[in-house]
Amino acid sequence: MSRGDNPEIGDGIRFTTPSDHVFEVYHEATCVGTEVGTHNPDAFPRHLVGVGVPALDHSLITAEDPGLMDRFLSDVFGFYATERVQTSLDPDADIIATWMTNSTQIHQLAVLAGPQGKLHHFAFRLGEWSEVGRAADLFSMDDVPIDVGPTRHGITRGQTVYFFDPSGNRNEVFAGGYLAYPDRPMHVWTPEALGKGVFYHSRELNDAFTSVLT
Amino acid sequence: MSRGDNPEIGDGIRFTTPSDHVFEVYHEATCVGTEVGTHNPDAFPRHLVGVGVPALDHSLITAEDPGLMDRFLSDVFGFYATERVQTSLDPDADIIATWMTNSTQIHQLAVLAGPQGKLHHFAFRLGEWSEVGRAADLFSMDDVPIDVGPTRHGITRGQTVYFFDPSGNRNEVFAGGYLAYPDRPMHVWTPEALGKGVFYHSRELNDAFTSVLT
Amino acid sequence: MSRGDNPEIGDGIRFTTPSDHVFEVYHEATCVGTEVGTHNPDAFPRHLVGVGVPALDHSLITAEDPGLMDRFLSDVFGFYATERVQTSLDPDADIIATWMTNSTQIHQLAVLAGPQGKLHHFAFRLGEWSEVGRAADLFSMDDVPIDVGPTRHGITRGQTVYFFDPSGNRNEVFAGGYLAYPDRPMHVWTPEALGKGVFYHSRELNDAFTSVLT
Amino acid sequence: MSRGDNPEIGDGIRFTTPSDHVFEVYHEATCVGTEVGTHNPDAFPRHLVGVGVPALDHSLITAEDPGLMDRFLSDVFGFYATERVQTSLDPDADIIATWMTNSTQIHQLAVLAGPQGKLHHFAFRLGEWSEVGRAADLFSMDDVPIDVGPTRHGITRGQTVYFFDPSGNRNEVFAGGYLAYPDRPMHVWTPEALGKGVFYHSRELNDAFTSVLT
Repeated sequence: MSRGDNPEIGDGIRFTTPSDHVFEVYHEATCVGTEVGTHNPDAFPRHLVGVGVPALDHSLITAEDPGLMDRFLSDVFGFYATERVQTSLDPDADIIATWMTNSTQIHQLAVLAGPQGKLHHFAFRLGEWSEVGRAADLFSMDDVPIDVGPTRHGITRGQTVYFFDPSGNRNEVFAGGYLAYPDRPMHVWTPEALGKGVFYHSRELNDAFTSVLT
Repeated sequence: MSRGDNPEIGDGIRFTTPSDHVFEVYHEATCVGTEVGTHNPDAFPRHLVGVGVPALDHSLITAEDPGLMDRFLSDVFGFYATERVQTSLDPDADIIATWMTNSTQIHQLAVLAGPQGKLHHFAFRLGEWSEVGRAADLFSMDDVPIDVGPTRHGITRGQTVYFFDPSGNRNEVFAGGYLAYPDRPMHVWTPEALGKGVFYHSRELNDAFTSVLT
Repeated sequence: MSRGDNPEIGDGIRFTTPSDHVFEVYHEATCVGTEVGTHNPDAFPRHLVGVGVPALDHSLITAEDPGLMDRFLSDVFGFYATERVQTSLDPDADIIATWMTNSTQIHQLAVLAGPQGKLHHFAFRLGEWSEVGRAADLFSMDDVPIDVGPTRHGITRGQTVYFFDPSGNRNEVFAGGYLAYPDRPMHVWTPEALGKGVFYHSRELNDAFTSVLT
Repeated sequence: MSRGDNPEIGDGIRFTTPSDHVFEVYHEATCVGTEVGTHNPDAFPRHLVGVGVPALDHSLITAEDPGLMDRFLSDVFGFYATERVQTSLDPDADIIATWMTNSTQIHQLAVLAGPQGKLHHFAFRLGEWSEVGRAADLFSMDDVPIDVGPTRHGITRGQTVYFFDPSGNRNEVFAGGYLAYPDRPMHVWTPEALGKGVFYHSRELNDAFTSVLT
């Protein structure tokens, strides 16, 4: 993969994962979000008219074997799982979903059981719950379809609104989540608590959430 | 109605409204919520283990003719409407719902078209959106059924969670709402925007919300 | 006082209070803040670039005899005191400051012992603590001098930033405060707790706060 | 350094840094904060009566040569600087302070010019601004001396209250801060903006903040 294949991205490696997703890794990207500069910068840019997200946060993709992707991301990229959904607490139980990171961010890439090569959603970072609520207000003003939220996730403890962009992809705004460390004991969720794990307040999954993939 | 008919309530008048609700008006009640005292009081009591609501905020009741109740509350109690749902913008349009107050609080009593003599919900006061989210978290921890929320109302602009108490009554925690004044122009909602008026984010009414009355 | 003396204000009465302030009362003012309209309105206007206050909240003025102004506002305008600073808890103690309202708003006009006819500050309404913090951020970006805050008041329990406008008047952004009722027991503060009553976190008054009047 | 030298800490290495601080590195510590467990955990523990911090966040220490500590932490521990105060923008300018991390957390260890071997403060993690305000309320209720805050830092953009524990050490509660990445351009502050860099709202350092070290 060469500089110019993607706008503002340098040379890199493109490969297909065991989950049939095409991944690209690269070591150079044009830095964006520089409106406030780097010399005595203000805390945020003025005159943002929409939700004003400062960064991407994470993605959730689907794979037939999330356990295989968990090993792949651990062995090849040094990620570790912060939370998992398993068929039971048995150490040999099947992995239904896994939330993975290589930093103190609670997750950077999550994998959910489902068809190979699909995207469930990607998420933009927000600072806190008041911004999550404001994002939902703005989505309504602009007739953006909201899938779920504002609400909290039991898994990751983040606060969230899921919404659909004009292409039909599910997007998320996400705030919070606790500090991850490799030696912090992993949270394990079992199927009877899955509703609460995903949507902490309604405690049930909606049909769109489990079926709309792109 | 005499002192002792209701705990901690003094003499008063009990009467039946045109909506077939039994109202009680009284001039004396034991003051509760006094843990911090009135001399150099702290900002809130310590050691509250639940949602920690400081006050009641408002009620929503149903009546066959909300317009009649609007006139009754105006003429007899000096209330005024801050927001209404009408069949159209025509000044003679039927009133489907009315939000009424006699202070700067955005509503104290609201009336929705429906059966005579029924309660839709009553609401506890919270300070802000962060407390509304925390209330929803606590409801999940304690297996309290949530009807809707956390979300915002278009009407009143308050932030809310509806939940059911063990008797099956719908309760609400409510924060925000703008300052009401008698000469502030009333907000008028028409049926095509009713979903957004009630639930600003989902923009649709759920079945339970329009049917469960007690 | 006639229509046209003040922009957008109707006929009224202009008089001088016992505290030597000129008050104007009127029954008609052009309604402002109407960008979202009154028919199916959105929750807030888009494209506000600054603090975006929706309303005025209250004023604090100084008088040689705050107790006299308390009686004047009670007897003539039907206000009642929600909180007071007194020299002691004795019912005949001198009143050093009084916070008064005629609604459920925690105060609309407060009077502090000081020179006759002076303004301490007036306050704009904000919705919640997250907006108070954001206002302070914007003041720094725009080099607006901050007097005190963000912090909480012990008296009224509101959340606040005091700042100076280009004319040298102290302004405030104010959120929160509990619901006031005429029969709610008044909070009484005595001098040893005055610092905490005014600035709940620093627990002391700064020099500017007690001296800059306009 | 052997298991048992510190409670709940395993074998490790104790050494003295170029800044004359004694550091201990270890690979095993008893996991605390486990009240909600790791199987289908609730979002937070119930019945926390105080500030309820979930984790430590970072420390700030002083050294005669912060630039030397910056190189030491980079070369030996793989940290990188997210923000720096320098005497000028010149690449060879002296480093007055440096904020360093080895993850997406905005800083884990910061070093400020000052005497060798001293602690300026260490910080507890909070989730958001509403919790920072509540912490300040609780400090006042419990007569905990507050040094500065609630306010925002320009540097790191975190939200903060500094307070003193009964031993005289400065502690902090800290929320927010943006996501750090090794290739994100470093923020550089120069002396004329130092007040705003440290305390974004007051825009000036107080005497205690620059002098009390332990």
